[in-house]
Amino acid sequence: MVDEELIRLKFSQQSSSEIYQPLDYILGIGGKRLRPVMTLAVCEAFGGNVEEALRPALGFEMFHNFTLIHDDIMDNATLRRGQPTVHHKWNVNMGILSGDMMLIKAYELISSAKPDKLTPLLTVFNHIATAVCEGQQLDMDYENAESISKSDYLHMIEYKTGVLLGGALQAGAIMGGAKTEDTERLYRFGCKIGAAFQIMDDWLDTFGDPNKTGKRIGGDILERKKTFLMVKAYELSSPKQRNTLNTIYANESDDTEKVNAVMALFDALHISEVTKTEIQQQYTEALEELSSLPISKEALAFFHSFAAYLIQREA
Amino acid sequence: MVDEELIRLKFSQQSSSEIYQPLDYILGIGGKRLRPVMTLAVCEAFGGNVEEALRPALGFEMFHNFTLIHDDIMDNATLRRGQPTVHHKWNVNMGILSGDMMLIKAYELISSAKPDKLTPLLTVFNHIATAVCEGQQLDMDYENAESISKSDYLHMIEYKTGVLLGGALQAGAIMGGAKTEDTERLYRFGCKIGAAFQIMDDWLDTFGDPNKTGKRIGGDILERKKTFLMVKAYELSSPKQRNTLNTIYANESDDTEKVNAVMALFDALHISEVTKTEIQQQYTEALEELSSLPISKEALAFFHSFAAYLIQREA
Repeated sequence: MVDEELIRLKFSQQSSSEIYQPLDYILGIGGKRLRPVMTLAVCEAFGGNVEEALRPALGFEMFHNFTLIHDDIMDNATLRRGQPTVHHKWNVNMGILSGDMMLIKAYELISSAKPDKLTPLLTVFNHIATAVCEGQQLDMDYENAESISKSDYLHMIEYKTGVLLGGALQAGAIMGGAKTEDTERLYRFGCKIGAAFQIMDDWLDTFGDPNKTGKRIGGDILERKKTFLMVKAYELSSPKQRNTLNTIYANESDDTEKVNAVMALFDALHISEVTKTEIQQQYTEALEELSSLPISKEALAFFHSFAAYLIQREA
Repeated sequence: MVDEELIRLKFSQQSSSEIYQPLDYILGIGGKRLRPVMTLAVCEAFGGNVEEALRPALGFEMFHNFTLIHDDIMDNATLRRGQPTVHHKWNVNMGILSGDMMLIKAYELISSAKPDKLTPLLTVFNHIATAVCEGQQLDMDYENAESISKSDYLHMIEYKTGVLLGGALQAGAIMGGAKTEDTERLYRFGCKIGAAFQIMDDWLDTFGDPNKTGKRIGGDILERKKTFLMVKAYELSSPKQRNTLNTIYANESDDTEKVNAVMALFDALHISEVTKTEIQQQYTEALEELSSLPISKEALAFFHSFAAYLIQREA
């Protein structure tokens, strides 16, 4: 349903303005459509009308893609899903403007909800949109920090990743006619499983199989990104080890040497296991939020397997 | 009321995130607040609750300021209202992100409308937001063109300036409980008076008193902007005059020479008078839209004087 509706939406067929081409482009180069699928799944689990929820659900996919376009400009990224980023394929101005348009289209899709659901839906959407921007700001602030605390890290990924998934789930519950407390449970489930998802992303970048992830091993290490792995490495290392870590980055050694040195430290500190434990904990806490929901066993099983997929995936 | 509510809104007092500082900054360096004031005036003219309309009205001011932040990046502008632009004061990434946040805050303010007005209000807002982005795209497309037609120009300024004023007025009418056809009349009034306003802006840049406008005479001429003046100059010039115009820009003459040469051509073609005539025509057409509205004589007189102010101002 999501993919069919996205084809029907095709913006550049509705207008000759060039501004719509990047929108179709980024929607066309893949993506798991996690958010709208979850909106619809939750709506259905609560007995709501999935057809009615479809366009608002796509609003979450649009919002996600808007953040990709603008984040890629801010991060100077040239590749996204193995393809040129929008600002790299066109130019920065087109990236800014098409991202703006995509954010507007996200709101337009949300606006198509039935009037009686519109205010609660917009409350959720405005909240998550605000949080995602605040999260991106934190990300930029932390770039220049030597290290950040685990709680800073969790706060950042909650804002950057968790709330959007949480919001998509909560929106589905609202459109399914769920009670407020149940919509909030789904929001918290989404935030926690979103955090687990992000930490898994960090793990895959360093410990994943590059043949499956399609990413070069140690990309995050070379960029000295504030991943969960790095945050824990700083937290767990002795003063001497921390010194080693700083020296690795201070020296102009080649990339392979750098990655190997950091990996050796990660191994010494059991970072892989520590990370897996954290993922498992976020996952367990996430599942607890689902335990009291008035949904069928089948629906519950679906959300469990969805959660398991997010943290067991290999790519 | 608008200014008081803007002070109450002060974003950076509500959050420690740095991302809010540019929002307060751009709102603090001036601006005529035309759009929210007009939303409220129309709401009042139709007997609506002005208090209730206040936050949605501010949504239009936020949207306007969002476009300023992002347009200034795209135009590489360093000054706005005599002060450093946001991306110049901070950096481009902060400009992108704070503009995004401002667009979200615009929607948040619109979302605060009563549920029964929300769907029509969002329909207007989504429409104008889309049009403004399409207008900015046209502006960028036209930058590389030697000249554009009058109808291209009018289309661009309708999208870049007219629809936002039109939308602010229409929103006021919706919140005042006006009939659909009256809300549409106010939209068309806004579009036309917005166009007249923009053409007046073009006129002031070249023929205005620099002591009053605070702008250097001929700024638009030097940048070879597609102003109404330039569009008409191309339209009215003989092949020989057009050749002269192209030669002026092809040559590496100094700024004063360039401005004087173009001004001489404008004089020969009576561009100042032609422009004033166009403004007068847009103004007359705009006023016609008001003639059948069910509002008091006082309210009508207010909108007339507002329209007159927009096209008679000296700065």
